[in-house]
This record gives sequence, structure tokens and C-alpha cells, in this order.
Amino acid sequence: MKKKSFKNLYSEKYIINKFFKKLSFNKLGTFNLENDAAYLNISKKYKTIVTTDTIVENVDFFSNDPPESIAQKILCVNLSDLSSMGSFPKAYTLSISINSKVNLTWLNKFTKKLYYLQKKYNIYLLGGDISKSKEISLTATFFGQAQLKYILAQKKNKLGDDIWVTGNLGNSFLGYKLLINSSLRINKKQFETFKKKYLYPIPCMFGFKVASNINSATDISDGLYNDLNKLLDSKYGAKLFKNKIPYSAKLKNVFFNNKFKLNIDDTLFWGDDYELIFTSIKKNRNTIMSLGKKNNIKLSLVGTIIKKKGIFDDSMTLIKKLPSFDHFR
Amino acid sequence: MKKKSFKNLYSEKYIINKFFKKLSFNKLGTFNLENDAAYLNISKKYKTIVTTDTIVENVDFFSNDPPESIAQKILCVNLSDLSSMGSFPKAYTLSISINSKVNLTWLNKFTKKLYYLQKKYNIYLLGGDISKSKEISLTATFFGQAQLKYILAQKKNKLGDDIWVTGNLGNSFLGYKLLINSSLRINKKQFETFKKKYLYPIPCMFGFKVASNINSATDISDGLYNDLNKLLDSKYGAKLFKNKIPYSAKLKNVFFNNKFKLNIDDTLFWGDDYELIFTSIKKNRNTIMSLGKKNNIKLSLVGTIIKKKGIFDDSMTLIKKLPSFDHFR
Repeated sequence: MKKKSFKNLYSEKYIINKFFKKLSFNKLGTFNLENDAAYLNISKKYKTIVTTDTIVENVDFFSNDPPESIAQKILCVNLSDLSSMGSFPKAYTLSISINSKVNLTWLNKFTKKLYYLQKKYNIYLLGGDISKSKEISLTATFFGQAQLKYILAQKKNKLGDDIWVTGNLGNSFLGYKLLINSSLRINKKQFETFKKKYLYPIPCMFGFKVASNINSATDISDGLYNDLNKLLDSKYGAKLFKNKIPYSAKLKNVFFNNKFKLNIDDTLFWGDDYELIFTSIKKNRNTIMSLGKKNNIKLSLVGTIIKKKGIFDDSMTLIKKLPSFDHFR
Repeated sequence: MKKKSFKNLYSEKYIINKFFKKLSFNKLGTFNLENDAAYLNISKKYKTIVTTDTIVENVDFFSNDPPESIAQKILCVNLSDLSSMGSFPKAYTLSISINSKVNLTWLNKFTKKLYYLQKKYNIYLLGGDISKSKEISLTATFFGQAQLKYILAQKKNKLGDDIWVTGNLGNSFLGYKLLINSSLRINKKQFETFKKKYLYPIPCMFGFKVASNINSATDISDGLYNDLNKLLDSKYGAKLFKNKIPYSAKLKNVFFNNKFKLNIDDTLFWGDDYELIFTSIKKNRNTIMSLGKKNNIKLSLVGTIIKKKGIFDDSMTLIKKLPSFDHFR
């Protein structure tokens, strides 16, 4: 890590020593975060998968969101990308830009959550950078491992491929709606459940497990429609089985309650679910189902790759992309 | 790269297609920037060196600095770190947070400069992320290659080691002083020379060439004193031969002109020179000098590692670190 001066803030060295050094887990190549750079210790049988994502105050999180939520978000968005490439995570670098709102208590909570999540996902901090800025902003670059032949990409579908989705969709979207719209009153316990889905997203790390059986994958960070659209190459379209899209019973209770005037189709166009969407040939169905069972991953077959370009519903009506949506980012 | 919506800005997809795609040089593993992640194609005989650095508007550059300068700075700070680890650069990821000041002309100039520098340093863009924020901010993560046994680190000096410095120091510092203090009037041509040193820093890529002959290295990003201090481990100190510190004749003309009231020792405590400072055993002197000649790198022997802790001048007077300096970052 590099030293910079922080007027009216703690010194970068103090912050690194007190909060970040322990996140290196003193692993080979990290130099205990005391060097300008580090080296990655990836086994020769794997390729190093790289992804990077930035989250910014007032764009990707609210200013007063708990530091633990911000920690979970920056890890989740990147872990989810590694998973969608068919890799498993190894290490990461973290650059944070902080303002005077970030005090020692904030840093303590933030790094404690990172420590907990690093243990959970078996990753260590390789290096980083601390700057000051008007708005809090975080950029992480993550390194994963995958065998070259099983690296997944988007736009690699074949005609007739099944379209699969992991987990349940829409929960984070509803959590966000409830947080910004106080007129949407549901019982407190349910409110907390959905709020947690928004503040503490959990990446679906199934990509590495299923990689050798599928053709193409991405993670759902902009709603099922938008991410399916990213997955499709220019040759094919998709037919969605709309009643097969997985929603929890709790979510349906809210969306189908007329007094809230919510439209469940809105979840197609927004929602940081961090579930995976992937395609595979039909004959792998059973293998995929049993991999799901083995890894405790809920799987739903939500569509099929078709010749006609565009995304259609069961009755082959073209689903129209909603214009710019009301989310704040 | 990941898609995000940009209210009142161009779509991220448009920006990537128009300006950033060509920076991937369509290299293996980049997926032409159309995937969430990419893979690094590092030869098996090397370790992957990783470094990351962030630069922020109003901290590391002025709001109205030319986009070409910002492009050169984000590359320079990272390339310099790779060099100080004894590695040569391979690829990088770039996350940029932009505000409404960043228009298409800005992006065009910025990415043209990146393209030019990528050709110069033989690197390609592996992936990235575009966000919006109040202030412009850039984080790059760079990947270099080095043989494990020649990876350089700080704090690996031996008693009696020579202390070497590349190039000339202080030019960027003077450029900055001239930019912020309009009462420092020198002739226009010289002003342009020093301003260029500040706005367009050039990393010294000698680290990989000299790595097998030296003990420890870092780059000079905070002035010779501060970076030498980082290089020293807790066992030893250093004696500096102050009249051997390399300054250009043009710089001395300004610093030794009484009317400017400048103190040349100030350059010890600030200055983004991006030259290297390294230590090596005395018997490697000739080898190092001839490597310098061969690679067209000016080398100066500016000190020696001593038993007494602290940094001393020729007469063994302790050099005292200046308290917080007047620079804006």
C-alpha cells in the first residue's frame, strides 16, 4: 500500500496497520501489505480470472448505509462476477476513497465484516490504496482461478439451450423499494427480511461447480431481462417461461397485494439479486439438477434459446424493455 | 465491463464501445471487454505482480488538468510500482468514476493518450468499470511479470549497501510549485518544461533490468527522504551524500536564485518523480553502472546503508523530516 497524507484524517499508515494488515492473512506474496505491490500465488493448473467493480456513495449505496453493508456489497459484486466466469475466488485488492464521515468506528465495522467474509469465501487481501475524496468510493479487483477449458463467457449459447436461474429473484429490489418508499408498509419482520436482502447481498458461488456442464453464464445485477439480454449473442433470442421465474412466497404476498400497486414484471428490469443465469444443452438437465441438489442451490428452468431475436414470453409476445427506471443509480 | 445506467450521461455501453474497446487490443482473455470478467495470460515462468493505485480529483490532480495528464498519471503511478518490484508490465484494469464535466471530447483525449501509452509500455486493458460520482476518480490495477527469485521488496537492505537513484529529482515538485504560485515567474519555456514534468510524469522502468543485481527498491512518489525511509528496515539507517543528489542544471538555476526563496531540501519531502531508489552491495557497482549505460538510465550513488538508525547527511547530522507540507494532497 502507498502512503499518502490525510489532512484532518488519520494517517494512511495508521489505518493500514490497525485495520487492513490483518486482512492479508499474512499470505505468501502479500508482503503483509508493507510493499508497493504484491504477487499472486495461483496454481499453474489454473488461469487467473480478473474482475473489477466500483461502488460509489449516493449511486450504489446510501450515505448512511451500515459500513458492514458496504463491505458486503463490494465483495458480493466481484465474487458474483468470478462465479459467473466459472472460477472460484482466491484474493483481491481494495482501493477505498474516504471522506471525513469515515471514522475509526466505521473502519472497524467495515474491516470486521471484510474479515468475516474473507474467512467465509476463503480469500485474502493482496494490497490496496487509501485516498480521500468528497464521496466514499470503493474499487475492488478480484482474482479467481479456473481451468482454461471451463472459463465461462457470455454470448456462447446454442439454439435450443435451456435457460437456468439460481435462487429466488426480486428480493433485493423489494428491499430497496421498501427502503425508499415509506408508504409501502408491511410488517416489521418482513420489512427486515427484504431490507437485509438489499443491504447484504449474497453472491451465488455455483459457477465453478457447474462450469463444465454449461455454455454461457452471467450474474443478475440488473434484473433478469437485462442480464439475459447481455447473455444472448447476436444470433439468437430467448423465450421466457414467466410463471417459472422463481419468487419467494413472501415476495409474491407483497407484489400481489393490490394496495401496494407493485408490478412483479418490474423485477425483470432491476434488482441486484446476484443469482446466476446460465444456459446449457438439454441433455445436461439431470446432471445440472443433481449438482444443484448436491450444492444446495435452488435451480429453475426459466426459458429456452430460440432462433427469433428478442426476449419473448410464453405466448411469444415480445417483452419490451422498460425505459429508464426509477432507481437512483 | 458491467453496465450501469447514467442519468444525463452517455450510456456505459456507448462509452465502452466508442472509447475503451480498442484498448483491449483484442488480446486473449480480454473478451474484447464484453464480459463481466477476463483472464490473465501470464507465462508460467513468471509470477503475476499486482499493484493498485487510485487518483482523485482535487487530491491527485486539479479539476481542469488535461485529460491526457490524468491518463498519464494513473498509468505512471502503477507502472512505477511494477518497476520497483522488479517486474515488467503486462496488462491492467481501469475503473473510472466520472461526473458531468466529462464529455465525449474529454473521453476521446483521455483514451487516445491511454492508447498511445499502452503501445509505448506494451500493455493492454483487461477490463474495467465506469461509475458516476461527484468527483472524477480513477483506480487502476496493474499486472506485471517477474521471476519469483528476482521479485524486489522494500526493507531488504544489507549493512554497507550503496543507495542509488535514477534520473533527476525535484522537477515535478518545481512544476507543481510554479503552477500553484503565480508569483514564481520564470521564463515561459522553462515554465513549460517543469509544468510538463508535473503533468506528464514518466515512470522509470529500469527495475526489471536491474532486479537481479540489487537488494531492495521503491519508487520516489513522496520525495527522496520519505521513500528512502520506506525502503529502510528497522535495523539500519542511511547516510545521504547530499551533493550527489541528482538535480538538473535548469532546476538548480531556479532553486539557487535567491529571489524565489526556494529551499532545495524541500524536494526531499515531496515530489512525484517516479524515479527509482534502490540498494545493492558495493561489489555490483560496475555491473549496475553498465546496466544504466546500456538502458540509457542516469544513475547516481547518493548514499550508503549504515548501522545508526535514521537518515543523516554527509556530516552525520540527522536530517529531520519536515512536518505536514503545503502540497494539496
